[in-house]
Amino acid sequence: MSGRAELDRLAELGLELPEPRAKAGNYLGWVRAGDLLYLSGQGADGWNGRVGDSLTVDQGYRAARACGLNLLAQVHDAAGGLAAVRQVVQVRGFVCCTDDLAEVPQVIDGASDLFIAVFGERGRHARTAIGVRALPLGFAVEVDMVVQLG
Amino acid sequence: MSGRAELDRLAELGLELPEPRAKAGNYLGWVRAGDLLYLSGQGADGWNGRVGDSLTVDQGYRAARACGLNLLAQVHDAAGGLAAVRQVVQVRGFVCCTDDLAEVPQVIDGASDLFIAVFGERGRHARTAIGVRALPLGFAVEVDMVVQLG
Amino acid sequence: MSGRAELDRLAELGLELPEPRAKAGNYLGWVRAGDLLYLSGQGADGWNGRVGDSLTVDQGYRAARACGLNLLAQVHDAAGGLAAVRQVVQVRGFVCCTDDLAEVPQVIDGASDLFIAVFGERGRHARTAIGVRALPLGFAVEVDMVVQLG
Repeated sequence: MSGRAELDRLAELGLELPEPRAKAGNYLGWVRAGDLLYLSGQGADGWNGRVGDSLTVDQGYRAARACGLNLLAQVHDAAGGLAAVRQVVQVRGFVCCTDDLAEVPQVIDGASDLFIAVFGERGRHARTAIGVRALPLGFAVEVDMVVQLG
Repeated sequence: MSGRAELDRLAELGLELPEPRAKAGNYLGWVRAGDLLYLSGQGADGWNGRVGDSLTVDQGYRAARACGLNLLAQVHDAAGGLAAVRQVVQVRGFVCCTDDLAEVPQVIDGASDLFIAVFGERGRHARTAIGVRALPLGFAVEVDMVVQLG
Repeated sequence: MSGRAELDRLAELGLELPEPRAKAGNYLGWVRAGDLLYLSGQGADGWNGRVGDSLTVDQGYRAARACGLNLLAQVHDAAGGLAAVRQVVQVRGFVCCTDDLAEVPQVIDGASDLFIAVFGERGRHARTAIGVRALPLGFAVEVDMVVQLG
């Protein structure tokens, strides 16, 4: 249950698990109900702005990947490792964007690609991606998810 | 489990189940966890634009119904038919709209009305509807849902 | 199961449980699946407008608290009292806002603080907060949630 294989795959991508981010309000990073783990929305420090204006789609992709890393840090905190993940069930991605940004899916693929790289088939998920007006702390991207443990 | 009754009700509405849409990114159309089926957000081809500007509320309603049909195609793919649906649990509707569009619920009723027409009481659901800035591929409406099977 | 303690805590805040709001479209206030209760998004009458423009962040906070009260009214309707709540699992908050509103979390804390005041540790939840373009009926804030009963 150490999740060594998952951390190895992160390392192959040149990434490592960050510390869980401080909360921006009066909520928890995660709550478990039965075998489902509900994760709070995560932005990523240093990735502020608006995709389609101050950030390109490629920068948005990297912001979404950083959000995904912050979600993995929460999963690790909740489950004592990444090996406990049976399936990533549902991912929701929110992109702070301009009116005409059609590439919302390409941005959120930054998180989805990460989960699949780390977990393989267990990382494949249902997803909804939307473009929004504003995100907490001026984040460019925010992602949340529901994970099945077991 | 063939879901014949549900398909008959679709036919009475002059509708038929489409093929599952191609994905717009690196995700699955659905994931099952226990008896819950999580469906990815679905737009509808041919329904692009912004409700309150290039589309009317009535056109938005028809776009939402088309999103609902695409969700039913995914349910059919996941469960081998629509009869497996015990209850539509939660629906979320996203409307690409202008700043002053108050009729967000009337738009998303296009999906809700469809589910209730097809499933009867089993189609009644909890719902959240919001107006957003941009949707994948320029869609005017996107809808996702969670369905209980069994 | 009367939820007297929870209602007492509401009273200490100078609040009382309202009647469940009329629905704005063709959906239910809640659906139960297993031990999870899915609540529809709730706005709050009298709290219309846009945070950062016609409403301040503090007014948005009070709007979110009023949304939270409307959610508690639905929980009471579903479970016959508030004592049936084992854990507030997931909260989603939507703020109708200007482009530059970074204080989205401070607004949604209005609902989160309420749940924690009423339920204590059982009120602590995972949360996602986003800023959107428009909400049903011109609401300034909308909040939904998933609650575990038992």
